[in-house]
Amino acid sequence: RLALPLLSANPLSSVAYAPDEIILTLAVAGLAAMHLAPWVGVAVAVIMFVIILSYRESVKAYPSGGGDYEIAKTNIGPRAGVIVAAALLVDFVLTVAVSMSSAAHYVIAMFPGLAGSQGLIAGCGVVILTLLNLRGRAKNRLLATLPVVLFVTALLALIIVGSIRAATGTLAHVASADFEIVPEANLESGLTGFLGVLVVLRAFSTGAAAMTGIEGPISNVQALKPPRARNAGIILLLLGVTAAVLSIGLMFLARAANIQVAEDPHENLRLNGGEIPANYVQDPVLGQLAHAVFGLKSPLFYVLGVLTILVLITAGHMAFRSFPNLASLLAHDGYLPRQLRRRGDRLGYSNGIFALGLAALLLVIVFQAHLTSLIQLYVVGVFVSFTLSQLGMLRHWGRKARHTADKHIRLRIARSRVLNLVGLVITAMVLFIVLLTRLTLGAWLAIAAIGILYLIMHSIHAHYEQVERELKIENVQNSRTLPSRVHALILVSSIRKPVLRAVAFARASRPSRLEALVVDVESEATERTLKAWDALELPVPIRVLASPYRETTAPITDYIRSIRARYPRDLVVVYIPEYVVGHWWEQLVHNQTALRIKTRLHFEPGVVVASVPWQLQSSRELIAQYDAAAEDSAENIVSQGSAETTKESHGS
Amino acid sequence: RLALPLLSANPLSSVAYAPDEIILTLAVAGLAAMHLAPWVGVAVAVIMFVIILSYRESVKAYPSGGGDYEIAKTNIGPRAGVIVAAALLVDFVLTVAVSMSSAAHYVIAMFPGLAGSQGLIAGCGVVILTLLNLRGRAKNRLLATLPVVLFVTALLALIIVGSIRAATGTLAHVASADFEIVPEANLESGLTGFLGVLVVLRAFSTGAAAMTGIEGPISNVQALKPPRARNAGIILLLLGVTAAVLSIGLMFLARAANIQVAEDPHENLRLNGGEIPANYVQDPVLGQLAHAVFGLKSPLFYVLGVLTILVLITAGHMAFRSFPNLASLLAHDGYLPRQLRRRGDRLGYSNGIFALGLAALLLVIVFQAHLTSLIQLYVVGVFVSFTLSQLGMLRHWGRKARHTADKHIRLRIARSRVLNLVGLVITAMVLFIVLLTRLTLGAWLAIAAIGILYLIMHSIHAHYEQVERELKIENVQNSRTLPSRVHALILVSSIRKPVLRAVAFARASRPSRLEALVVDVESEATERTLKAWDALELPVPIRVLASPYRETTAPITDYIRSIRARYPRDLVVVYIPEYVVGHWWEQLVHNQTALRIKTRLHFEPGVVVASVPWQLQSSRELIAQYDAAAEDSAENIVSQGSAETTKESHGS
Ligand SMILES: [K+]
Ligand SMILES: [K+]
Ligand SMILES: [K+]
Ligand SMILES: [K+]
Ligand SMILES: [K+]
Ligand SMILES: [K+]
Repeated sequence: RLALPLLSANPLSSVAYAPDEIILTLAVAGLAAMHLAPWVGVAVAVIMFVIILSYRESVKAYPSGGGDYEIAKTNIGPRAGVIVAAALLVDFVLTVAVSMSSAAHYVIAMFPGLAGSQGLIAGCGVVILTLLNLRGRAKNRLLATLPVVLFVTALLALIIVGSIRAATGTLAHVASADFEIVPEANLESGLTGFLGVLVVLRAFSTGAAAMTGIEGPISNVQALKPPRARNAGIILLLLGVTAAVLSIGLMFLARAANIQVAEDPHENLRLNGGEIPANYVQDPVLGQLAHAVFGLKSPLFYVLGVLTILVLITAGHMAFRSFPNLASLLAHDGYLPRQLRRRGDRLGYSNGIFALGLAALLLVIVFQAHLTSLIQLYVVGVFVSFTLSQLGMLRHWGRKARHTADKHIRLRIARSRVLNLVGLVITAMVLFIVLLTRLTLGAWLAIAAIGILYLIMHSIHAHYEQVERELKIENVQNSRTLPSRVHALILVSSIRKPVLRAVAFARASRPSRLEALVVDVESEATERTLKAWDALELPVPIRVLASPYRETTAPITDYIRSIRARYPRDLVVVYIPEYVVGHWWEQLVHNQTALRIKTRLHFEPGVVVASVPWQLQSSRELIAQYDAAAEDSAENIVSQGSAETTKESHGS
Repeated sequence: RLALPLLSANPLSSVAYAPDEIILTLAVAGLAAMHLAPWVGVAVAVIMFVIILSYRESVKAYPSGGGDYEIAKTNIGPRAGVIVAAALLVDFVLTVAVSMSSAAHYVIAMFPGLAGSQGLIAGCGVVILTLLNLRGRAKNRLLATLPVVLFVTALLALIIVGSIRAATGTLAHVASADFEIVPEANLESGLTGFLGVLVVLRAFSTGAAAMTGIEGPISNVQALKPPRARNAGIILLLLGVTAAVLSIGLMFLARAANIQVAEDPHENLRLNGGEIPANYVQDPVLGQLAHAVFGLKSPLFYVLGVLTILVLITAGHMAFRSFPNLASLLAHDGYLPRQLRRRGDRLGYSNGIFALGLAALLLVIVFQAHLTSLIQLYVVGVFVSFTLSQLGMLRHWGRKARHTADKHIRLRIARSRVLNLVGLVITAMVLFIVLLTRLTLGAWLAIAAIGILYLIMHSIHAHYEQVERELKIENVQNSRTLPSRVHALILVSSIRKPVLRAVAFARASRPSRLEALVVDVESEATERTLKAWDALELPVPIRVLASPYRETTAPITDYIRSIRARYPRDLVVVYIPEYVVGHWWEQLVHNQTALRIKTRLHFEPGVVVASVPWQLQSSRELIAQYDAAAEDSAENIVSQGSAETTKESHGS
């Protein structure tokens, strides 16, 4: 039950900024155009509802949690799947950037003294969110869901009280109600002609920001209780109704309160024909509505502001949480490094979360947390995946229809196809309009980011494919033949316990031939080593390798190559004594030569490198810590319940 | 023959800044004190000559190139040796910082428009010098020695022509000759009383900057042609004579030309009782002398300026070059990481050179390339090592005297002892005065840096000692016992060629027991693996390790621990198939799990980790490149001659 509010945080948080974008886009055509704002809101809500209904079909067909990525991959092809995945990754980054920028807007609405620091506040928000997610502690779910529930309750109260006040004419008078809008030069005659249509289309496509996040529930089906597909359907329906009611209600209320917002208020708004006050800070529509309904500077305004900020933070947090899920799917299919397959891989995900946070931070800094610009990118990312997902579902139903004779089922399929077709046309249109009207204003950045991510994932996949071909076993019989004999070599530098252990282990494996090697870098040291070796009276001969250039690695590889040349079918095993240390700085003062030799020997075919570790005392404390930490994290995983552990059983 | 100019660059470059420091220190006591400047110069030159004579004795006694470090270590003790080494490291950093700051001063003298950017110019100089040394190309020695030779020639010409002009009264009139000096409030009566004595002592100790670098030749004896000790002695004598002649000549000439410099010219200098021109840029003494002798704005002024800058760059470069030599000695004695023993270790030295450059850059930035401040630190660093070295030599002769009966030899020893005693008293005095008068003005920084370096080197040494005790072989008989049997385990993730190779190699080593292991992180994948394994029809059983927490490492270590518990005297060998790749990014998408398992297994006692490498095609190109590079560098070392290769045969 707690999943509903958490998964709804992202889509519902959009009402914090989508109304502003619709109104200020229309504002360029003057007051007359403003009257259209609620109807654009209605159009957005209707389309959102259609897409949500279509997603209900999707989740029934693909209940495994693969989301838009799986739908596009299965029905269109792997390339489309990777494009969707790239778009979703961009979407995660922008969810964080937009949510924190909007949160900063609300912070300033509550503390107008901070006006002008929107970029700084949003940047700090991104950094804190990233650090919280890097620490990766399990959050108290109840604590996270409470703000979402209270937020929806507060907005419903706002709409109900506001409607009554609007009907009785007792809405408070907000500052912006007195302003006049200066339309752009070529739009002074209002929404007439082609330009007028374009403005309405742009308002609609920008308002599509309200739909960002509705793809979340179907990607996170696995977090729900079974029956998952059914629960996801219910969540989507509830979400659709709530989002539609809120969007439409708030838009009409904003019109009733005559709230005006513009992209640059000091440029585009006028007060009694003159400039508006220099210290005027343009609050978000939701904030101005709270003033109008609950009274100017009412405490309820601050309550709503805090709740909105908390919901925006939850939305950003969920984007971070969605990343490992998608990354795991992509890693499964070989589009990201294999180690990301397992969600337990802390290190891998830390890098991913760090990259996500850094990208969001860069966007916030570059755009100075300017929402109108960021939302263009956001809409591009989201609608690329929407469009491909709708196309995928259309094909899915097409294939289904071809294989079904049952009339009843064919009718239901036909209904789904219509839904998806409408969804496809509209999502493609939104994408087209955003690209058409905003490409040079930043939307190209989203396209470029999707392209780069696509290329990276494509390259990783191509690499894995090539390695797969290279490593495939063609001739089992052939590869079952064994090397005839084993030549064991022990690398000796100084005669101490680790070398003795290496000798003992090498001898225990009873090789056909066993030799100790010492590289004569320094004649005095070599003398000492030989003397000490003789004193040990070991039944192992020692060979001195000349090193005219005082080099350690080359004489060893040269010697091994000479053995391999004489006995090409033999196996060479090189035993290297190694120190195991407990602190990173100890690593700096030990093993450096051993490490270099090991790395180099890996490149020689037919050579096995056998590390004989010697655990220094300091390493024992470290391993005790490791063991304790492993137990802790095991307990942690168990306490997180079954949702987590079943996450990976799907896919191939 | 080319070594003389190169080794002389550092000590001779001191005449670029030492005269300024002597004059401006005396300037605080007014014009009367200024007349003492040449005599302070004479005192510095005499002491320098004494120290150089003493160094000639040192190099005969310690011809191996260990320098002050070896002298202090052998005669006083290892702690004194490490203090000297720390002081020398600080000395290297300051040679770079001071040389580049002085070079910046000369750049500004030639292009007065750059006045005020001394810090920036010096900083760029340090960065460029560091980058050049990081690339580590062998420089054309002839090209590097030419500026030093021309610099000395030019200065001798300046002194001769200048002396003639001074005698005939035809020296040009430099701007600063008209200025009056405003003595400090408490020194208005000139150099009387205790304060006056203190000023003279301070001028002398600051002028000791002229002696910085004379320790270079005895640390670099190995770079000379044999007979090395004799050649070093000749070089030191030539150096001493040249440096003394230049110092004394320039100081007298500066007095004759009435050149005045002050720490803050706009504060401490007056023109006809009023302020000096606001745009007055104070040139270094050498620059003003060139104006006075060769005529104002003579082309020879620019020639001398360029030569001075080149010599200062060579001095800084030699400090970088001296670092590996000292680091190698320290690594030999276990005070720095062992891998620095060999000068061939590029990576190790790159880190050292980077650290050296970074420290110099920080100093230049913090002190804004302000020479008077930097030189205090410089003198501290140099004189700590001078003092301890003199003390060491005194002890050395004392011990010699006790073991010699021959009257003739005893007489020569007595002479050396007197030289060293004079040297010790004077170097200790200089150190004392600098610390006394400048401790709070920055000299503490040099002391702190020496202290920190001492602690680091001491810790490294203590760590090595402890490891040595831990690893010493006490009971040969005991450690000669062999493990009774070998349990071989093969880690299997997917059935591809690398696994087959690992199986073949493991079988070839004929262990007592051989098992393949697969960790059941994902049941489907495990099924596939088991099926593929059966299809191979290998005579090796496969064991599935349960992984309730979807963890790879813990089930393996748990299983190994259970084997070790049952058969404590057996050896466990874990064969891990590993991919060898050719590009760094390939490493990111392969082996991450193998690497983690290997690292973890190193902590388990009684376990050998045998990496079975599989060379991917991309790795073959890389190894071909390696082989080519190795041949190149071998040729390079040979062409550098014998000096390089014999460098490490000394010391234990
Ligand atoms: K959203
Ligand atoms: K989203
Ligand atoms: K999402
Ligand atoms: K110097
Ligand atoms: K020096
Ligand atoms: K030096």
